[in-house]
Amino acid sequence: MDKAALFAQIKKKSSYLCVGLDTDVNKIPKHLHRAKDPIFEFNKQIIEATADYCVAYKPNIAFYEALGPTGWESLEKTVDYIPKEHFTIADAKRGDIGNTSKLYARAFFETMDFDSITVAPYMGEDSVTPFLEFDGKWVILLAHTSNPGSQDFQLITNRDTGKPLYEEVIKKSQSWASPEQLMFVVGATRADKIGHIRSFAPDNFFLVPGVGAQGGDLQAVSREGMNAKCGLLVNNTRGIIYASDAEDFAEAAGRQAKKMQEEMSGYLDKFLP
Amino acid sequence: MDKAALFAQIKKKSSYLCVGLDTDVNKIPKHLHRAKDPIFEFNKQIIEATADYCVAYKPNIAFYEALGPTGWESLEKTVDYIPKEHFTIADAKRGDIGNTSKLYARAFFETMDFDSITVAPYMGEDSVTPFLEFDGKWVILLAHTSNPGSQDFQLITNRDTGKPLYEEVIKKSQSWASPEQLMFVVGATRADKIGHIRSFAPDNFFLVPGVGAQGGDLQAVSREGMNAKCGLLVNNTRGIIYASDAEDFAEAAGRQAKKMQEEMSGYLDKFLP
Repeated sequence: MDKAALFAQIKKKSSYLCVGLDTDVNKIPKHLHRAKDPIFEFNKQIIEATADYCVAYKPNIAFYEALGPTGWESLEKTVDYIPKEHFTIADAKRGDIGNTSKLYARAFFETMDFDSITVAPYMGEDSVTPFLEFDGKWVILLAHTSNPGSQDFQLITNRDTGKPLYEEVIKKSQSWASPEQLMFVVGATRADKIGHIRSFAPDNFFLVPGVGAQGGDLQAVSREGMNAKCGLLVNNTRGIIYASDAEDFAEAAGRQAKKMQEEMSGYLDKFLP
Repeated sequence: MDKAALFAQIKKKSSYLCVGLDTDVNKIPKHLHRAKDPIFEFNKQIIEATADYCVAYKPNIAFYEALGPTGWESLEKTVDYIPKEHFTIADAKRGDIGNTSKLYARAFFETMDFDSITVAPYMGEDSVTPFLEFDGKWVILLAHTSNPGSQDFQLITNRDTGKPLYEEVIKKSQSWASPEQLMFVVGATRADKIGHIRSFAPDNFFLVPGVGAQGGDLQAVSREGMNAKCGLLVNNTRGIIYASDAEDFAEAAGRQAKKMQEEMSGYLDKFLP
């Protein structure tokens, strides 16, 4: 999916919501345990209930990997089930030497048909570029994450430039790919930082985790981060997929997704230039 | 496996060789394609031929993941087949927010029974510590890798300390775990750097890739890096598992592993205090 198609979806739905599919067999409603593939059954019903209100889905690969081969089968079925107009994100945080990154790219872009993958930048250019060799596929590079540990290394100031590491990552990686193929993970927990990052990454989409359970403020994120093509995919996981742990879980998820979509619709009216 | 047991194996075999299992279905001998599980069949014969000469095996997870669920089955069979006295490394380069790293830990330490996993440090403490909650299991943290992209961010100098990022990673992470649970990935391409790192990480094991195909020098690495408990696991992949692409591939792998073991035996005599 290219950037124009993604923006067209955002306008059509008045939404830049991404629903995280961190599907945990210990958290899904008990009655689903009778299904042949409880993880897929949960995802299927969540997707049906939320598809009208979001533009992207982000399965967190760890949740599937922890289950072994059957987890990968549930993941493959889930990716196939997501409607084609939705942008799909393999939240995998991979990154390795060139020949190895190439295989991860094959796993998520060929064996499965994800539109994008999250990648960790620590190993540098040759760990990232193999993912960029696939037409119409995206890298979403970790820049400033939303977890407490983001303080440990991402804020280290480069003696030579006076800039923090996350800024070096964004600036250097902009020479590896255009905003047509490169997004950044920018946590929502500090909205002022999103505005700062927007100043030197004007055209890239940001994938923004941390709204909801982690305390990020959707209005501030939208005000600081929105560009002429929206430029934001705001993720919510727990607030949506675990809105209820009873038989009405899918309806509850749909209601929460609709609520976020309505809020986003207002911000699109207000902040989209 | 604890550090004492690992060192006992190193002394017993006069070897600190780790064999990389980057098993690529396009590179294994043609006659194996008739086997029910060609990837596992290749690994099985490689393990049988090299087990006497190495102390560790390191499957590169990307190669299995790229094949989907069947790849994970081959990987599980491989881990189960590796003799218990060998140290096993899931070369996965994972790392995510706490609840997600915990699931990756479960995938590699519970669903499968690896002794250790390689972890990327970019997301900081809470992305690493969930792996340390498993008794007898190890984190092998990326510090200074052997690929060209290691120059992009790992060498950035911290304005406040005057130290490069990889050194910050090593120093900070030493407060998260003792050398009984924490190793570092230190590339072999610059042996002088290994000596430097040994000066502030005297007791940690280093996993050293880059000897062989990537040009690292085993003698220099051993001289600079060895400590009183050896402290080195030197990996070779392509020089061993792809020593021959004919029916004699396992014998050829065994010969190459034996050659490295003999060289290592000399360095243990020479450099072990």
